[in-house]
Amino acid sequence: MIDIREFGIQEGISEVIFTTISPEGVANAAPIGMHMKNGKLFARIYNSKTLDNILSKPAAAANIVDDPVLFVQSALSDIEQGKFEFTERLPVLKDALGWIIFDCICRKGENISVVELLPVESNIKRRQIKPINRGFNAVIEATVEATRYVVLKEKKYIGRIDYYNTIVQKCGGPGEKDAMKLLYDLIRL
Amino acid sequence: MIDIREFGIQEGISEVIFTTISPEGVANAAPIGMHMKNGKLFARIYNSKTLDNILSKPAAAANIVDDPVLFVQSALSDIEQGKFEFTERLPVLKDALGWIIFDCICRKGENISVVELLPVESNIKRRQIKPINRGFNAVIEATVEATRYVVLKEKKYIGRIDYYNTIVQKCGGPGEKDAMKLLYDLIRL
Repeated sequence: MIDIREFGIQEGISEVIFTTISPEGVANAAPIGMHMKNGKLFARIYNSKTLDNILSKPAAAANIVDDPVLFVQSALSDIEQGKFEFTERLPVLKDALGWIIFDCICRKGENISVVELLPVESNIKRRQIKPINRGFNAVIEATVEATRYVVLKEKKYIGRIDYYNTIVQKCGGPGEKDAMKLLYDLIRL
Repeated sequence: MIDIREFGIQEGISEVIFTTISPEGVANAAPIGMHMKNGKLFARIYNSKTLDNILSKPAAAANIVDDPVLFVQSALSDIEQGKFEFTERLPVLKDALGWIIFDCICRKGENISVVELLPVESNIKRRQIKPINRGFNAVIEATVEATRYVVLKEKKYIGRIDYYNTIVQKCGGPGEKDAMKLLYDLIRL
């Protein structure tokens, strides 16, 4: 029996990185909002590599991560295969603080599918104490805006990214500044 | 020798709750951005109870906290004395994940003072694993805007608080929703 709450997961939406595997054995990583509602876990996933992979092998690992660069990279590009480690069931992220592997039940939609998540295996690698860093939080918000920008190309998203960048430059550490640099590089491609 | 990095404190600004004590023995709590620059710790503190207390007894405890309600309450009102516990040196927060007590060297300014922080005692009470919650982060940003609003009374801050509230309602758990409710109550007084 896996105690989801031991992983700090609560009602609402937890931002994690889903790792999945393609029929060809290629690992993929993407940030996903994992919903918990009345104790049930699910994700709403747009048409994407993550969804294709889940449709071919109905399993996903939720990686709990505190590295801002991993968030930006997995949101806007591909993560190098060297950053994964392979468990029997699925690839997970080497640098995750912990992970939960789920069996997935997918209700396919036209643009967005609802994926129910049933925990089957879990691992806590590292517990830590960490104060709030507004710079880290701003990287996450900037990444959300950047994923919208790359699809919709509306200038307002750049304005919001620039706003969050001022918080990163003021409050963030080296990791957060590297993450923002990468974010700007990836959306300017 | 206290290893500050063991507390997750890095270059940049960490958001913690400072607890201090008045000459009359009354404990006070307030959110403070704790700066680390080239390995040195300091805070920039506006004229406030926290500053008065540090000027009378030059010591402060940085409490690492993950309770959104504590952040809102300590930013916009007073925390009940029952939420403190008293160490030999200073009061700290019962619900802190950990704390560091600092000797303070204060360079008094007219409106804002720079307080150098020299660690003298520390305690890690609880390490944990926790995914990112955008609702939690939004409570922190809303609290920053709310502290500006109560001083400057400009409507733009309410607009920003309302924006962050939409994120809290979408992504937050019960604690985050309670914190936002309290925030709105406290700024409407």
